[in-house]
Amino acid sequence: MKEVAQAHIKIYRKDKLEELDDLLAAEAPLEVELRYFKAGEQQKLPLVLLMRSPGKDKELVTGFLLSEGIIRNQDDVERFQFVDNGFRMEEKPDKMFVILKKEVEVDGDKLERNFLSSSSCGLCGKDSMESLNDSCFILPRDSFKIEADKVLALKQKLNEGQNAFSLTGGLHAVGLINEQGEIEILCEDVGRHNALDKVIGSLSQQQHPPFYNKGLLLSGRTSYEMVHKALMLGFPFIVSIGAPSSLAVNMAEESDLTLVGFLKENRMNIYSAEQRIVF
Amino acid sequence: MKEVAQAHIKIYRKDKLEELDDLLAAEAPLEVELRYFKAGEQQKLPLVLLMRSPGKDKELVTGFLLSEGIIRNQDDVERFQFVDNGFRMEEKPDKMFVILKKEVEVDGDKLERNFLSSSSCGLCGKDSMESLNDSCFILPRDSFKIEADKVLALKQKLNEGQNAFSLTGGLHAVGLINEQGEIEILCEDVGRHNALDKVIGSLSQQQHPPFYNKGLLLSGRTSYEMVHKALMLGFPFIVSIGAPSSLAVNMAEESDLTLVGFLKENRMNIYSAEQRIVF
Repeated sequence: MKEVAQAHIKIYRKDKLEELDDLLAAEAPLEVELRYFKAGEQQKLPLVLLMRSPGKDKELVTGFLLSEGIIRNQDDVERFQFVDNGFRMEEKPDKMFVILKKEVEVDGDKLERNFLSSSSCGLCGKDSMESLNDSCFILPRDSFKIEADKVLALKQKLNEGQNAFSLTGGLHAVGLINEQGEIEILCEDVGRHNALDKVIGSLSQQQHPPFYNKGLLLSGRTSYEMVHKALMLGFPFIVSIGAPSSLAVNMAEESDLTLVGFLKENRMNIYSAEQRIVF
Repeated sequence: MKEVAQAHIKIYRKDKLEELDDLLAAEAPLEVELRYFKAGEQQKLPLVLLMRSPGKDKELVTGFLLSEGIIRNQDDVERFQFVDNGFRMEEKPDKMFVILKKEVEVDGDKLERNFLSSSSCGLCGKDSMESLNDSCFILPRDSFKIEADKVLALKQKLNEGQNAFSLTGGLHAVGLINEQGEIEILCEDVGRHNALDKVIGSLSQQQHPPFYNKGLLLSGRTSYEMVHKALMLGFPFIVSIGAPSSLAVNMAEESDLTLVGFLKENRMNIYSAEQRIVF
């Protein structure tokens, strides 16, 4: 499993020091370079350095491009070219070239200004709030319906599916859920935004956005950036094990996105747009 | 307490929906604009949009400038000017102007390329790994010594000090610790890098970096960016309640930084540079 790395560690228990082998959440850099066409000439643009858990890199990069509004759907990409440098600190990072189709228009100057030298924190490429609300989908009020007890049951399903976390305690997980309360896709990563981008990239291989008929299950907390990414792709429903931030709740309310937090096996908190939950 | 916001929510417990008032971790944007001098003329540079928990904004911005290597110490700043817009989504974000002293040299072109339109994720402004290892301090091997049992005792001390988290369940905390195992400063934020920047900014009011005589206590996990920020300021010791990532361990090993994880009241895992812990 690529999301996990091995380490030799020492454990101290009151007055006793032991050594043993342990597993760590793997984290490694991926440089992404965009190649697109302008007036018939191929352009090369270093786009972003992603600190991510290796694995599902193509999905990660696709999800990043989609949630940042650089491509509209999977079909905009001609192909990916991946250079695996098996990175450790002293070596070269892994690298991904994304070659877009000739007819895809990219505003390179704007991208260079906004994305070059940014990371995958979900808000990079932004120096003002105005720029954040562009390109979000407007959610249909009645998209996605799910029974309350099916939402509660997701806690247990996430625990069962979250492999790397249970091994290392160090990963975020994001699940793609449907109206039947099933987890269709589950991705893990050291970065919560990366885990979400991996889900987005995986789903985009099956359908084009907006994803009005799907919801998201988050292992951690819900911050503004997670709600923003959801709205960029048209997900109308987010449920998280952890707490939401105030700005996440504000944005969910204003966008009529259903936001559930503190999911446990017998209770949950509902912060907005409860019409999507059937009690 | 500025780190906490109030919300009216609904709770669903198996077959029962209730309403009540609850507290949320407050999250709000802060636009930072840098003002510096070049050939006698004042320059204005929109630097970064920080999604942060309001409060200790001056410390946050100071810590950000220090850990990104834009200023060398607190004395480089002439003054801060804060515009409180009491932000919600439909209004203007809060804004901070940082006016540097006339003699402080800033490479505006490099900054514009590297920081404009980035977020506070700790790795923004970077499109390659090489750029990340500049400006880190080299840690003296024997800096900072702490008894093992004093490290274990930090778990309980963090719990007692972490106010906003216990209210909302939604915040990261970072503590500044000394060799006596005391928490000297404790800052909370929705972003773990922000909490660390707030600690850095607070400490920089008392002493100039490098901070070889202090350690860091993290409420969450240790990712690469946290180790990187520590090295940019010269902290030789990090202990976290959660797991470290593989890249965090690699970088700690190579920099001889002491990294402890999974801190509990009676045990801890030691990943590197154990010579700073007295057993």
